[in-house]
Amino acid sequence: MALMAGLRVPARALLRSGCWLRGAALAGAEAAAGLGAGVRRFGSQRVLVEPDPAAGVAVVKLKSPPVNSLSLELLTELVISLEKLDNDKTFRGIVLTSDLCGVFSAGLDLTELCGRSPAHYAEYWRALQELWLRLYLSGLVSVAAVNGASPAGGCLLCLSCDYRVLADSPSCVIGPNETRLGIVAPFWFKDCMVNTVGHRAAEQALQLGTLFPPAEALRVGLVDQVVPEDQVQSTALAAMARWLAIPDHARQLTKSMMRKPTADRLAKHREADVQSFVSFVSRDSIQKALQTYLEKLKQKG
Amino acid sequence: MALMAGLRVPARALLRSGCWLRGAALAGAEAAAGLGAGVRRFGSQRVLVEPDPAAGVAVVKLKSPPVNSLSLELLTELVISLEKLDNDKTFRGIVLTSDLCGVFSAGLDLTELCGRSPAHYAEYWRALQELWLRLYLSGLVSVAAVNGASPAGGCLLCLSCDYRVLADSPSCVIGPNETRLGIVAPFWFKDCMVNTVGHRAAEQALQLGTLFPPAEALRVGLVDQVVPEDQVQSTALAAMARWLAIPDHARQLTKSMMRKPTADRLAKHREADVQSFVSFVSRDSIQKALQTYLEKLKQKG
Amino acid sequence: MALMAGLRVPARALLRSGCWLRGAALAGAEAAAGLGAGVRRFGSQRVLVEPDPAAGVAVVKLKSPPVNSLSLELLTELVISLEKLDNDKTFRGIVLTSDLCGVFSAGLDLTELCGRSPAHYAEYWRALQELWLRLYLSGLVSVAAVNGASPAGGCLLCLSCDYRVLADSPSCVIGPNETRLGIVAPFWFKDCMVNTVGHRAAEQALQLGTLFPPAEALRVGLVDQVVPEDQVQSTALAAMARWLAIPDHARQLTKSMMRKPTADRLAKHREADVQSFVSFVSRDSIQKALQTYLEKLKQKG
Repeated sequence: MALMAGLRVPARALLRSGCWLRGAALAGAEAAAGLGAGVRRFGSQRVLVEPDPAAGVAVVKLKSPPVNSLSLELLTELVISLEKLDNDKTFRGIVLTSDLCGVFSAGLDLTELCGRSPAHYAEYWRALQELWLRLYLSGLVSVAAVNGASPAGGCLLCLSCDYRVLADSPSCVIGPNETRLGIVAPFWFKDCMVNTVGHRAAEQALQLGTLFPPAEALRVGLVDQVVPEDQVQSTALAAMARWLAIPDHARQLTKSMMRKPTADRLAKHREADVQSFVSFVSRDSIQKALQTYLEKLKQKG
Repeated sequence: MALMAGLRVPARALLRSGCWLRGAALAGAEAAAGLGAGVRRFGSQRVLVEPDPAAGVAVVKLKSPPVNSLSLELLTELVISLEKLDNDKTFRGIVLTSDLCGVFSAGLDLTELCGRSPAHYAEYWRALQELWLRLYLSGLVSVAAVNGASPAGGCLLCLSCDYRVLADSPSCVIGPNETRLGIVAPFWFKDCMVNTVGHRAAEQALQLGTLFPPAEALRVGLVDQVVPEDQVQSTALAAMARWLAIPDHARQLTKSMMRKPTADRLAKHREADVQSFVSFVSRDSIQKALQTYLEKLKQKG
Repeated sequence: MALMAGLRVPARALLRSGCWLRGAALAGAEAAAGLGAGVRRFGSQRVLVEPDPAAGVAVVKLKSPPVNSLSLELLTELVISLEKLDNDKTFRGIVLTSDLCGVFSAGLDLTELCGRSPAHYAEYWRALQELWLRLYLSGLVSVAAVNGASPAGGCLLCLSCDYRVLADSPSCVIGPNETRLGIVAPFWFKDCMVNTVGHRAAEQALQLGTLFPPAEALRVGLVDQVVPEDQVQSTALAAMARWLAIPDHARQLTKSMMRKPTADRLAKHREADVQSFVSFVSRDSIQKALQTYLEKLKQKG
């Protein structure tokens, strides 16, 4: 499909490149306790997919305790789930949410970026690029039901969706807080920020590493709606209905017109971006900063 | 003039290419009932021009009943009127408005896009490009007095002006509703939207085909002022006075600096854009969608 | 440093090119009356630098009566002060403000642009480019404490900082009012405006030459905070503390990511921009307009 033209690395290549999917639950389906008769969950160990074929919608739930850090495994399973849904004509939209309490996604898994080999960093970054390109350009309507904190890479996931509903709770902060950890968001995250909140607000938030509480996130345009925590999913589904009222082909062409130039900036220079990341994260100073941060987290936790 | 550098097809070429101007009223002038002595209307059958030479302003009124659909004839007459005013040093500004009740312009004339030859689609699209380039880059100050509904191509006309005043009436909706008809706005309409309301609001409005009621149009920045219906024209003229307080040459160079990069994206690839449109609109699925829509309109009307 | 890659003309080249620094106060330091023990002012005749080494912050005060017009001397002294601070590891941030009452900076010094040689116009424009590139890309945190009127080039200085605090006084207007004088802001000022307030607000303000009173400047996003006049500097220092809480290297790389594409548009075409300015300002019509304006100012003053 035209919308996918930017994507060069199919999910199976990610698998081949060494990411082992524990449980091999990909093709399987499990009975879903608490769902109506005939509704079945599928997905993988860390990504639950709750399909509603009648509505043409699947709810995709991140479930990688304790905080949905984007490990290589979670990235890969998410890419595979999205690829599957993108290619299944039953589905026209997805709601992306968290199965955990209080956190949507904590962003990049820093243990993947600390004390590993350059080859590992490269593999990890390719998987992150892949996830972003797939989600940002997906032909499916994507609504983020942000039911928990969503810093850094978690924020990136949200911004890559078509619409964002955030839970109105003080813990549900969202934003690009990379600089606070001494690291830097990639240019394509920056582009997403600029496209969503404009150049000035992006510049300030990215430099200051701002985590926005719900009211501020709404005011700056980082999310589209803020609702009580127990209405996040129903509000996301109501938004989905508005998007599904539009004929897919016209909506998809329009989405591509809006997003392809941004995605192409990465798609055309993926390897350079990988090399730039690997060389940045391999620096002694960055490794030390990450190590210090991880040790602090351990002491806390 | 530098501002016009992007324009390669003069209005007479459009005429030569087969568009017959009924009434040949172009050069003529008619006594204008209800206007002060010495003030004369000119224009063509579908475009009334009410000049106020003392003020250096002309009011350009669309009059193509029932809904000012942008037929090939209306496009051509409008291009010719604009070219004439652009080249006449008497005039420094135009107010673009509708002579009909309740509608500014219904946008593209779908009967031009349905069951016709590829050559016709190409001719039509070239005329639309021409109108947009001329209006968007005009050295004249252009104020849209939006006294009626302004969907799709009607919205494009408004966004191509320097300033927009919208009537505060529930029927005066404005926005890019193309996707609702199963079609897609061209990239230069998208660029206009992004330039006016920013990337995020443009993305959402273009995908959802949003028609904004006046208060929402003002909030999102699609228009600059919303006033009671009977004050639209006077407010537009008051805005015009503020723009005319600026020396023309400095204002024109600044306008060109802001708009030429956007216009050039089309000007440099006009034929590719024509071919892309012709091939899109010639698709069976699009023809069927347009036919169904036109039949619905007939049944309603 | 990577952030400075766009800068080709070091400050000493400006000096060599003929700008004489009266007082040769550059390297000197003077006892600062009214400052605490051990705190010393340095700087040049027109640029006072009040360092606070403990905080890592220097307050840079423009002092070129009567209105801090950006003369070639002031531009050059400011570039040299910034270069010095940029290269001194004692400092992580600067507060840019005015030592005069009621005016931050009146913008370009029109006497430099009127009745002089093309070579002088070229030298002047190169110095302005140099100042902008250095301030816009500075690795230092820069906060503008805008304690007076800030039209045209004054506004450009403010927009080139990271954060702007404006005094809440009716005289403290700020904006790009070039067109009102019959001149045109350069494209890189336009880019700064677009990056700060978005395309639509920039287009309108630049064409109309709008000077925004404080409340309007805040609403449109031209400044970040408006506070009572006597709190401008303390508020600027409080903002500085928030920016200094971020590790420098991550903040600087992020700033560069946001700003380098904009700066590069000028950095790559500096000479063409100089030539374009020289030919514009040398026009008879522009010279006459400037002369008339200067004579009016004289009669007033």
